Amino acid sequence: MKIVQKDFSISTKKRNQLIDITSQVSSIVGQSGVTNGDAIVYCPHTTAAITINENADPSVIHDILLTLEEVIPHHRPGYQHFEGNSDAHCKSSLVGCSEQILVKGKKLYLGTWQGIFFCEFDGPRGRKVYVQICGE
Amino acid sequence: MKIVQKDFSISTKKRNQLIDITSQVSSIVGQSGVTNGDAIVYCPHTTAAITINENADPSVIHDILLTLEEVIPHHRPGYQHFEGNSDAHCKSSLVGCSEQILVKGKKLYLGTWQGIFFCEFDGPRGRKVYVQICGE
Amino acid sequence: MKIVQKDFSISTKKRNQLIDITSQVSSIVGQSGVTNGDAIVYCPHTTAAITINENADPSVIHDILLTLEEVIPHHRPGYQHFEGNSDAHCKSSLVGCSEQILVKGKKLYLGTWQGIFFCEFDGPRGRKVYVQICGE
Repeated sequence: MKIVQKDFSISTKKRNQLIDITSQVSSIVGQSGVTNGDAIVYCPHTTAAITINENADPSVIHDILLTLEEVIPHHRPGYQHFEGNSDAHCKSSLVGCSEQILVKGKKLYLGTWQGIFFCEFDGPRGRKVYVQICGE
Repeated sequence: MKIVQKDFSISTKKRNQLIDITSQVSSIVGQSGVTNGDAIVYCPHTTAAITINENADPSVIHDILLTLEEVIPHHRPGYQHFEGNSDAHCKSSLVGCSEQILVKGKKLYLGTWQGIFFCEFDGPRGRKVYVQICGE
Repeated sequence: MKIVQKDFSISTKKRNQLIDITSQVSSIVGQSGVTNGDAIVYCPHTTAAITINENADPSVIHDILLTLEEVIPHHRPGYQHFEGNSDAHCKSSLVGCSEQILVKGKKLYLGTWQGIFFCEFDGPRGRKVYVQICGE
């Protein structure tokens, strides 16, 4: 059994943005020496998140961001947090700050249309992603 | 330490449906030979999800589907994805495509009222579930 | 490779409340003897959840609870569950009943502003939290 931990950095360009990080995670899996097990992808920020969704048609990402913006708008009467980014904290807790993906045959065992996305909700900023590959 | 990976198939019958898959996951745990560790239950589809909630009173599931439908309706002005199932992609990212459950004494260590559900948001379809049991 | 499983109890005081449980989880990590690996924090209840968010400014928590209350109000026409807590079941499935955090150098590898929270959505009640530390 083997555990490999690796961090990488990304730069986001907009306040709300989903960035496909599948290739970065795949490459950590490939270098890990793990054949079967799982990958944890973790966001150490409280105004961002990790999700898995379709990376074939970019309009899917557009529609997810539109929905999040309408359900959790930037400003809401009653918000107390002085930084003005309470919506980003809410989106972070609802989307969730990590994902786990199985590793099979030395590769991420994703579905056909699935990609891994870093979700920026209060950019643009420099951000980190933590990855752990565990298995045999 | 042991890793067991297994897939199974299900057929969904409606556009929106929660299907209790606790017994399928339990049976993989029972056959895995793992005493203590954890189970990952993973959905490889971008318009479906996995959740854990009450499986005693079926009205709980009814009320969860009702809430999701009202917060994220099928159609929303501004959606660009040509397949007309953007709501399903949003629900998938909000509910999340996987769950993890501890394994203790060779059994799923669920709470008294908890069951594991496959969440269909764009059915009816044939679907897959990936499971990994890891432990000693 | 080592697996340590431990439960602890908490008492919630309000119907909706986020309780910082970072120190309890940290202390289980410290006693586990694990240097590198991961921690699973799991809520065995169907009207509560686990999330990771900012634990520096308490107004963030206020604003998350406010948003959840407005998006998923206590009562909604059409709810069928007789206990009157369907909103709590929905919040549980959307926030999610578990989180995973990497363990690095014998410590939780959280981001600077991140804390782990137990989310009560149908309190006040006595509640349990399950923790597993796995690693080497």
